[in-house]
Amino acid sequence: MNATSRLRIGITGLGRLGRRHAQNLAQRVPGVELVAACSPLAEELDWARDSLGLLNLHADYEAMLAQNDIDAVFLVTPTSLHPGHIIAGLQAGKHVFCEKPLALDLAECRRVEAEAAKHPKLKVMIGYGRRFDPSYSDAYAKVQSGLIGTPFLVRSQNLDMNDPSGFFMRFAPTSGSVHDIDFARWFLGSPKPLRVFAAGTIAIHQGLREFGDVDNGVAICEFEGGKLACFAASRTMAHGHETLTEVFGTQGRLTIGANPRLDRVEISDAYGVRNECTPTFYERFEESFLRETIEFVQAVREDRPPALTLHDATEATRIGIALRESLLTRRAVEL
Amino acid sequence: MNATSRLRIGITGLGRLGRRHAQNLAQRVPGVELVAACSPLAEELDWARDSLGLLNLHADYEAMLAQNDIDAVFLVTPTSLHPGHIIAGLQAGKHVFCEKPLALDLAECRRVEAEAAKHPKLKVMIGYGRRFDPSYSDAYAKVQSGLIGTPFLVRSQNLDMNDPSGFFMRFAPTSGSVHDIDFARWFLGSPKPLRVFAAGTIAIHQGLREFGDVDNGVAICEFEGGKLACFAASRTMAHGHETLTEVFGTQGRLTIGANPRLDRVEISDAYGVRNECTPTFYERFEESFLRETIEFVQAVREDRPPALTLHDATEATRIGIALRESLLTRRAVEL
Amino acid sequence: MNATSRLRIGITGLGRLGRRHAQNLAQRVPGVELVAACSPLAEELDWARDSLGLLNLHADYEAMLAQNDIDAVFLVTPTSLHPGHIIAGLQAGKHVFCEKPLALDLAECRRVEAEAAKHPKLKVMIGYGRRFDPSYSDAYAKVQSGLIGTPFLVRSQNLDMNDPSGFFMRFAPTSGSVHDIDFARWFLGSPKPLRVFAAGTIAIHQGLREFGDVDNGVAICEFEGGKLACFAASRTMAHGHETLTEVFGTQGRLTIGANPRLDRVEISDAYGVRNECTPTFYERFEESFLRETIEFVQAVREDRPPALTLHDATEATRIGIALRESLLTRRAVEL
Amino acid sequence: MNATSRLRIGITGLGRLGRRHAQNLAQRVPGVELVAACSPLAEELDWARDSLGLLNLHADYEAMLAQNDIDAVFLVTPTSLHPGHIIAGLQAGKHVFCEKPLALDLAECRRVEAEAAKHPKLKVMIGYGRRFDPSYSDAYAKVQSGLIGTPFLVRSQNLDMNDPSGFFMRFAPTSGSVHDIDFARWFLGSPKPLRVFAAGTIAIHQGLREFGDVDNGVAICEFEGGKLACFAASRTMAHGHETLTEVFGTQGRLTIGANPRLDRVEISDAYGVRNECTPTFYERFEESFLRETIEFVQAVREDRPPALTLHDATEATRIGIALRESLLTRRAVEL
Repeated sequence: MNATSRLRIGITGLGRLGRRHAQNLAQRVPGVELVAACSPLAEELDWARDSLGLLNLHADYEAMLAQNDIDAVFLVTPTSLHPGHIIAGLQAGKHVFCEKPLALDLAECRRVEAEAAKHPKLKVMIGYGRRFDPSYSDAYAKVQSGLIGTPFLVRSQNLDMNDPSGFFMRFAPTSGSVHDIDFARWFLGSPKPLRVFAAGTIAIHQGLREFGDVDNGVAICEFEGGKLACFAASRTMAHGHETLTEVFGTQGRLTIGANPRLDRVEISDAYGVRNECTPTFYERFEESFLRETIEFVQAVREDRPPALTLHDATEATRIGIALRESLLTRRAVEL
Repeated sequence: MNATSRLRIGITGLGRLGRRHAQNLAQRVPGVELVAACSPLAEELDWARDSLGLLNLHADYEAMLAQNDIDAVFLVTPTSLHPGHIIAGLQAGKHVFCEKPLALDLAECRRVEAEAAKHPKLKVMIGYGRRFDPSYSDAYAKVQSGLIGTPFLVRSQNLDMNDPSGFFMRFAPTSGSVHDIDFARWFLGSPKPLRVFAAGTIAIHQGLREFGDVDNGVAICEFEGGKLACFAASRTMAHGHETLTEVFGTQGRLTIGANPRLDRVEISDAYGVRNECTPTFYERFEESFLRETIEFVQAVREDRPPALTLHDATEATRIGIALRESLLTRRAVEL
Repeated sequence: MNATSRLRIGITGLGRLGRRHAQNLAQRVPGVELVAACSPLAEELDWARDSLGLLNLHADYEAMLAQNDIDAVFLVTPTSLHPGHIIAGLQAGKHVFCEKPLALDLAECRRVEAEAAKHPKLKVMIGYGRRFDPSYSDAYAKVQSGLIGTPFLVRSQNLDMNDPSGFFMRFAPTSGSVHDIDFARWFLGSPKPLRVFAAGTIAIHQGLREFGDVDNGVAICEFEGGKLACFAASRTMAHGHETLTEVFGTQGRLTIGANPRLDRVEISDAYGVRNECTPTFYERFEESFLRETIEFVQAVREDRPPALTLHDATEATRIGIALRESLLTRRAVEL
Repeated sequence: MNATSRLRIGITGLGRLGRRHAQNLAQRVPGVELVAACSPLAEELDWARDSLGLLNLHADYEAMLAQNDIDAVFLVTPTSLHPGHIIAGLQAGKHVFCEKPLALDLAECRRVEAEAAKHPKLKVMIGYGRRFDPSYSDAYAKVQSGLIGTPFLVRSQNLDMNDPSGFFMRFAPTSGSVHDIDFARWFLGSPKPLRVFAAGTIAIHQGLREFGDVDNGVAICEFEGGKLACFAASRTMAHGHETLTEVFGTQGRLTIGANPRLDRVEISDAYGVRNECTPTFYERFEESFLRETIEFVQAVREDRPPALTLHDATEATRIGIALRESLLTRRAVEL
């Protein structure tokens, strides 16, 4: 597209995360214009009108796709809707940004990949936004520069603060961990996965048992070429949200996020020397949400592939599904 | 002003810091429109036209003030010009945001205060932006909440990375430290200063001797009511820019900025466990520049005094001048 | 034994670690007297005579056991000799302290346990000394006090500095990790292990391939009652020796050893802000070696069981053997 | 003295610190024999007999000096007694180790120096033990190696935990800070002091006012050759004892003791990520007390000057007295 014209965007899904994306698109992303929003909920559309001044509001996704003046769509909808919405968007000739994960099963992933292949001029990007976090970007650049030699092991843990209400149960249970899988593949050079093993436990939320789910888990993934990943995930932390990744290389190690400091303030009092922590992933990764959007917009405007491919999203889902199978069967699962 | 109309701003001074302010005003501050820029240098005006699309470009400050559609001016000019430019801005009926410090001597500070008093509807704010840094804001809120009891001692140090070229000599020599003075007054509740003592040394830049200047210094300031401040400043650090402040209270201590981490990445290699540091004050305080502008804009739009008064700026200058006198006379200076 | 009489000790094995034990026994442990030493190497006996002033020196372990004035023996010999030497010691009526691990296979472990059961008055303790490290002791006491609620997951990693010579190959390959297994059992309340999975890689030392060994590995162990452990081990670090353990409980987490600081010195220079690290396990755990000896001596003098049982040592070996089997078979191993 | 004979020591003063020294001498210092103790308090002598098995117990220092089999005396008595006891010890032909500070006024310091000069074969050392702390030793060695270029500024703060009872008032009020003065001189290469300024406040303990004392203070000391020191001292901390020293050099900075961690345990819970702190100087400097004693003993046995000279102790006292004068007069004091 023309370098000076602005990319016109419609967004669907205005829940907590959708609103953040909408605000970023409306106010903080250069080169775009947020021109339409879609939601089945009237109150979400009211918010879009009142807070962002949006005039083109749709209850129905198809109706929004019919708007000719939209170049790209942002999908911040439930995962089960992702594949259908991406495909419809592509078929309507729109570039598509979709929140992660791509889909709940592999067949759906591949259906989307196949559709995307038919539209080589359209860009599709799944929002594995943490790759765009300044610290992860910096660590990745350091690995690429050879600072730690050849990376061979990634250990990553995604710890969420306990929600006494158990509200998180309504979300996809392993949503955080799929980022860890994506980090591991990214830092290790996208090797082919061979085998996984996972184990979990219910530390607090006994209600998860009926869903075959856990609130804490650990896992190992072996890749081709002697690459390894080790994961941990928790939804029962007391101190805040912590995403910690260690990248081990032959000449050094990088650690990202070892202490999830809220800011640069340290308190020395009767509790010792301490710092407060980022309460949720949002405070930790606020900048990432903005930067992933900027990457997508730039990729469209420069007519180049986004940094993250659909295949990356498929692979993260594939490994995630295998981990879940291992958790349930208590055996190592070959990929 | 009307809550929905945008504040129209003209900026003068487009050096390194001026460009940052101009970019923030053009792209990141809600509720404003950057409508004009002024610089004696053609290349700076070219930049404003090419990068920001500005059309009203002036070589002369008076010409910009004559623009009727400007509500407020931003001054990012040499300190010696601040008083005259603020006063001219006020007399032209504009709100004024001016980079710190207010002036080089007290008489000038008071001349500005007197002029401002004649225009009670116009807002004037001096850019002691570090008060708006998220960590300093957080620490201040904690002090206000009583977390550390009554604050009685502030220790603050402003350490800049060594510039082998000695380029910093061309800037106001103690520019960093005046923030420390401002922090101390702010956290201690703006007590009346009583007495200062300062001592300095030239560790590296022998060329400073002819200016009666130093590249490292320490100082003490006593305030009424048993409040104390202790300062250190350096321009010869190897690791980066570090602004560290300790606030001692009767029930605890807060430390802000103890390790000037660049981000959340830690390296473990032959040099030990380490993190890279913010190279200059700009990387450390990028967010502050944005937030101080937002504060000024909101104060104007809500017709309320900005968080920082002109008197705060005068006091910081007054203490700074006394510190310099103590450095030269090697005696304690009464205020 | 009489509270004021001193425990008379003979030591066998005067390699690097044996000399440390000998020095501790001779100079730093109250209530003991080092009265004899045994080694097949003349130079080691020379050292014992010259450095410690020992007069009863034996080339042969049986000869040392024949000394009537010895109450207890310290075994710092190769693992393959442990079972036979412990049993011989017990049959000679001596209390026995033996460096970890207990044995290389389970049958040997049980043979020792059976022999020990025949000598209920004699104390036997295997040197899982890291339990006596001040930080691990402190963490354990905190868990016992309920500070973090119920512990359910232990993550522990044992990282050794790379030895370019590959010298470590001559030692028991997974010697460090067995401490991690012991930590996990200890903090989790010694639950019954159910299942393990392990994966490894050779990052640097290709020569290990012929021994079926790896220089980096990760593992998961599931215990009864939903308890979990996750391990990592490396012998290829650049920064030093790091033993890091995280204990996750329902109300908080403890982290032990997150940054293996050499001391309290921090360097700020062109490499950032950094600290040097403990080069080997010895600098990290020097105090533990002393404290485990004191524990053993006190247990004997007070005629009470030592804090660590033979069963603990057997279980650590049992899990370690299963991990090795998993590493070789690439399947989860049931226990 | 003969390399194999043991140094026979008598100790006077068995208060809290005296007992620590006595225990170290009895159990942990190689090459010595604690043969006598002296105290005016019967209960202290009972402790020496019961806990250490000492037989030669004296109520009177002169009587202990009369013991011919004593080579050296340890003085852990009130400061006012130091000069007289050191002089008497020397005149009785004993080597003398005396806790810091040397004396309360300069004339006394010089009287001791003069007496010591008459006994060139006898060693006298004042216990500025923190120089022997492993971290301070390491930092000093790094400075000597040139790691941070030429040191020119030492900032040191000595923060004690608040004692609600105000018990510390009975001790010499600035006892901690004199270590900071000693550190500064040591790291800066013992330059001649030129001028000091000090300021203080009473944050909590109003009862100190009648003694002209403060519970928090800051100070600056200028030395010849452009060397500087900056001190802070507090007796009202909530988190523990913290001795923090920054050494600024032309090529880097060393920080010693930035976070007074109790050990290597970190807690992540509702209070954030935190570590407990060393409650008093004793937990922080336990090793120093032992190492200073070992240094003294080795100096005597090797017939060489101890690392710390009497002149060092005099200079620390001289600067300390000037700081107190500045605090009272509110003026800079020339030395």
